Amino acid sequence: MPDDPLFLDATPATVGYTFGGREPVATIYPGELVRLRTWDCFGGKVTSTDDLPSQVCQFPYLNPVTGPLWVDGARPGDTLAVHLVDLTPVGEVGWSATFPHFGALTGTPTTAMLHPALEERVWQYRIDAANGTVGFTASNGDYTAELALQPMLGTIGVAPAAGEVRMSIVPGVHGGNLDTPLLTAGATLYLPVGIDGALLAVGDGHARQGEGELCGVAVEVPMDVTLTVEVIADVPTSLPRLETDTQLASIGIARPLDDAYRSAHADLIGLLADLTGLDQLDAYQLLSQAGTARIGNMVDKQYTIAASLDKSLLYGAEPYRGAHRRLRALGGRP
Amino acid sequence: MPDDPLFLDATPATVGYTFGGREPVATIYPGELVRLRTWDCFGGKVTSTDDLPSQVCQFPYLNPVTGPLWVDGARPGDTLAVHLVDLTPVGEVGWSATFPHFGALTGTPTTAMLHPALEERVWQYRIDAANGTVGFTASNGDYTAELALQPMLGTIGVAPAAGEVRMSIVPGVHGGNLDTPLLTAGATLYLPVGIDGALLAVGDGHARQGEGELCGVAVEVPMDVTLTVEVIADVPTSLPRLETDTQLASIGIARPLDDAYRSAHADLIGLLADLTGLDQLDAYQLLSQAGTARIGNMVDKQYTIAASLDKSLLYGAEPYRGAHRRLRALGGRP
Amino acid sequence: MPDDPLFLDATPATVGYTFGGREPVATIYPGELVRLRTWDCFGGKVTSTDDLPSQVCQFPYLNPVTGPLWVDGARPGDTLAVHLVDLTPVGEVGWSATFPHFGALTGTPTTAMLHPALEERVWQYRIDAANGTVGFTASNGDYTAELALQPMLGTIGVAPAAGEVRMSIVPGVHGGNLDTPLLTAGATLYLPVGIDGALLAVGDGHARQGEGELCGVAVEVPMDVTLTVEVIADVPTSLPRLETDTQLASIGIARPLDDAYRSAHADLIGLLADLTGLDQLDAYQLLSQAGTARIGNMVDKQYTIAASLDKSLLYGAEPYRGAHRRLRALGGRP
Amino acid sequence: MPDDPLFLDATPATVGYTFGGREPVATIYPGELVRLRTWDCFGGKVTSTDDLPSQVCQFPYLNPVTGPLWVDGARPGDTLAVHLVDLTPVGEVGWSATFPHFGALTGTPTTAMLHPALEERVWQYRIDAANGTVGFTASNGDYTAELALQPMLGTIGVAPAAGEVRMSIVPGVHGGNLDTPLLTAGATLYLPVGIDGALLAVGDGHARQGEGELCGVAVEVPMDVTLTVEVIADVPTSLPRLETDTQLASIGIARPLDDAYRSAHADLIGLLADLTGLDQLDAYQLLSQAGTARIGNMVDKQYTIAASLDKSLLYGAEPYRGAHRRLRALGGRP
Repeated sequence: MPDDPLFLDATPATVGYTFGGREPVATIYPGELVRLRTWDCFGGKVTSTDDLPSQVCQFPYLNPVTGPLWVDGARPGDTLAVHLVDLTPVGEVGWSATFPHFGALTGTPTTAMLHPALEERVWQYRIDAANGTVGFTASNGDYTAELALQPMLGTIGVAPAAGEVRMSIVPGVHGGNLDTPLLTAGATLYLPVGIDGALLAVGDGHARQGEGELCGVAVEVPMDVTLTVEVIADVPTSLPRLETDTQLASIGIARPLDDAYRSAHADLIGLLADLTGLDQLDAYQLLSQAGTARIGNMVDKQYTIAASLDKSLLYGAEPYRGAHRRLRALGGRP
Repeated sequence: MPDDPLFLDATPATVGYTFGGREPVATIYPGELVRLRTWDCFGGKVTSTDDLPSQVCQFPYLNPVTGPLWVDGARPGDTLAVHLVDLTPVGEVGWSATFPHFGALTGTPTTAMLHPALEERVWQYRIDAANGTVGFTASNGDYTAELALQPMLGTIGVAPAAGEVRMSIVPGVHGGNLDTPLLTAGATLYLPVGIDGALLAVGDGHARQGEGELCGVAVEVPMDVTLTVEVIADVPTSLPRLETDTQLASIGIARPLDDAYRSAHADLIGLLADLTGLDQLDAYQLLSQAGTARIGNMVDKQYTIAASLDKSLLYGAEPYRGAHRRLRALGGRP
Repeated sequence: MPDDPLFLDATPATVGYTFGGREPVATIYPGELVRLRTWDCFGGKVTSTDDLPSQVCQFPYLNPVTGPLWVDGARPGDTLAVHLVDLTPVGEVGWSATFPHFGALTGTPTTAMLHPALEERVWQYRIDAANGTVGFTASNGDYTAELALQPMLGTIGVAPAAGEVRMSIVPGVHGGNLDTPLLTAGATLYLPVGIDGALLAVGDGHARQGEGELCGVAVEVPMDVTLTVEVIADVPTSLPRLETDTQLASIGIARPLDDAYRSAHADLIGLLADLTGLDQLDAYQLLSQAGTARIGNMVDKQYTIAASLDKSLLYGAEPYRGAHRRLRALGGRP
Repeated sequence: MPDDPLFLDATPATVGYTFGGREPVATIYPGELVRLRTWDCFGGKVTSTDDLPSQVCQFPYLNPVTGPLWVDGARPGDTLAVHLVDLTPVGEVGWSATFPHFGALTGTPTTAMLHPALEERVWQYRIDAANGTVGFTASNGDYTAELALQPMLGTIGVAPAAGEVRMSIVPGVHGGNLDTPLLTAGATLYLPVGIDGALLAVGDGHARQGEGELCGVAVEVPMDVTLTVEVIADVPTSLPRLETDTQLASIGIARPLDDAYRSAHADLIGLLADLTGLDQLDAYQLLSQAGTARIGNMVDKQYTIAASLDKSLLYGAEPYRGAHRRLRALGGRP
């Protein structure tokens, strides 16, 4: 393990647009604190409200991810635990936009309609880290509002199994564009290792987002990310799972939302039963009364829902041999 | 307006299984405090864990609603505001169950599968009003858990327009089995008046439920309900809307969940734009960052999602001419 | 049974807009030939391409059905077999239209979008019974095309069970707006009797339609209908089923289409197994290779798919005790 | 162009399990007749009804495709037209099966349920080329049936754009596991070229299949395929399209089926308008009355629907500069 923490800047050499299919740009070691920077989803090309993404960006090359990082010791069949120690937006502005034929309330290439595209428009947000706010200004009229700053990562994933390569804008079992607001500092994400070295990459920082990412674009910011990882050997994972100090979640990824809801809950029921000894129907019943189900996005090629439960229901039982607790300690946050 | 508050008990004469198609059992007046009792969704027929609903209940006669109540002055084209002043579970136990071919993780008559039904099982919950808890006991093993008591009404609605009559277990534009956890004491629900007198009915009390009502059955309890209404004349409503002291919500009702999400947000965008002067795209953008989307149920013939926003974003503007504020004052709760 | 065949004209007294909730306008007897006329879905109010439905029709009062007819001897728990002896479009023109926010390729109240409505436009079709054609003329340019005349009934149903009343534009287990192109002369439809007398009503004649009724409106015509019925006592039916001389079908009714597909096939597998003695998995396998699945509509509040099989696979076994064969003979068609 | 027709056998060196991510195994030239063999979807490992696929196959390595073939001259932005000259099943048996948690009427990883898997079972079919039949034999009882032999290719595609690699079992814009019964000898498929050389691969021959491929497995056979290609330079294609002597189709690929229906029809409307000069709404209207919509599969990670129209409606206009007509002539079939 190296003496100095890695810092990986976001440069054309260190970012890409896929999970899988690229050579690692660095090697990281379990337990090491890794710092890296991510570009915003526009690759930094939107710098004023006149910069329409469809003109300044080169489709489909959106949503750059920094990496991939070779994780020392990770092998197919393992689970990679990625703990987010810190997420700090870079700079004092964030950007959002409506895109042509992208979003939950517009015709898209799949939910195809005969309507012309909605107007493409860009909004600039003010990031005030000191006050913990994100400032919205209407494009028409003088309405403004201050929202809570809640930094999160939209996209985090590894190379898929079976030789697949997916665009970074697609969520899947390998992670990717999960867009779940639970992915904040202090959270640990569990992903299935698909190939040797896992090939972790992250990007798509959000200063905040609403549930479902309604128009398809959050408050997009470059982000300084501090993370650390653990490899849980020989423990497979079927769906991305997420753990915080208080919550345990399974992330369903599917269309329609119904199936994201179903797969997330089926996975969480299995996990709850394993950790508590409840039988399947008892776990189903308990989650029916105690579960939450937060919509991540309903705009990508696959939609996401995080089904979660309060860890007090686990009476101290820990998934993945306590990986979150150990990584939390390494992160050094209170 | 009468001197004494109405109290309407739940009896075979005062409960029914439809919205529309029944004669009013009482008349209520705007501003009057109305107290009534509701049966649980099983009509009180489940009294032990040996009482399997498929045996003790007579399908499809589930989910009884108390009423309907003729609302003085309500006419088609008006909106009925129903404010829940108090919800008190009756007794010290609640019931839940798995039903054959009902729930989110089983084949159903529409999401038809070739699998035999899951096991039918009944759970008894302990309602502890003093401590504010709902106690779960596993049917196998010795696992128990205390969950927070969060009384809500699953079903509240009026007679549909255009002569339709719907079973009480179905949610729709007329309200019905909305199953949204936001429907607690202190909330005001806005419903479109479909026929003269509105014909309000309520039922299906829950001591609490998880998001999406995973197995299709919450912690079902009889409930003492105190409510009061206001008729907002000549103001139509397209979807049920809900207001609390801090939140404003539109309730989308559709399958798949995608469409519940879409219709709820499209409605809330229109409402937000009307109340603030934001143009449609600004409202779309703001809600994309600031909105929440809570799944009510994903188990009925139609699914529900409540899209909501924090009322601080309205800067004091009030929907429905301030009906919630007036009804809140009438309710006399702090 | 009366001597002369009934002829029931379509008049304000004999048409309505619901299944259930109305008094019978006539009594019919099993085996009797019944003749009646239906209005087109616009109630005859569209008479030129300048008559925009949103202006000349009074929403939601569309899709009038002639009836209801009291069927002598029909009781809940029975199945009503309705055989279409003849369907003859009335007159020489048919009408179609785009409606605001209705159709498969536009935002609708449930698949809500922020787009303004598509243009509302009306098309007149020429019905040429002698040549068996339906003539399309483009509204812009000089393109014309002759399509095959294939008269069918869009809407046929009985009063729902459990006291429900549904608008005639909604399909359901009770039948209603099924919009399946299989509903032509020579077909027998099987519906569950929900209340005494069944209360059959029919309407929404189509000179023809494409699969899925893409824009939501077929070539709409008034229709002269000759039908005859049989009551199959004490045989319940879960989904509408349809039989012709060569095909046997189950009609799935749900959203999304996936569930219409699933429920139709699950029902047809059960029927196939019952009639042939195949076990469930063998019937599943056979239908996987031999089945067809025709989309009725993807535009109404519920979508429909008819799963069907070739009756040669039944080796002479007959559903419903041979009702189709008997009714076919009564119809007197070759 | 070489003198002798290429014949490419299916061997471990010439088959793979992805579109993209593999080196070409041969080069083909536009206009050349290419012959190749494909393995069945089980890779030939099912040889008796005792060979359960979950035991004899190595998941997820199913659905092998022969290739990829470098197409001389194909560049991103072009369209590749692939004409199927001949499809001849190899041998006299075909295989089908139920797979655990795969198919339309069982819980799957995405439409997750708590039910245990349905029984895994294998069926052997007799392929009788002389009589043009496929013989079904029930696994229980003595039921048999002869179905029509209708050879088709389930899977045909090119390398995706933007560096993606997809498993061969997934359908997408690049083609892949389309499973449409229209893909028979005599059909031309149009695919977007994603990378230099296109990298065409084919596999998954079916002796026949039902609409929707209900249980997820057709009558699976190895196939001798004769095909020829044309590169249509600088003509992009958004969705796979298919042309026969009488039909023109767009293939929608999405979940739920609704979106497959929508995207297929939106694409076909654009094509119809381009070819005839009809405006968009006229084309929408015409297709509403004249279109067909055949479900390919409802079992893969994405579902497929082919929206089609009769080419007589085009009055001689030809898509893709007449590629189908030219390729048809090359194929030398009557």
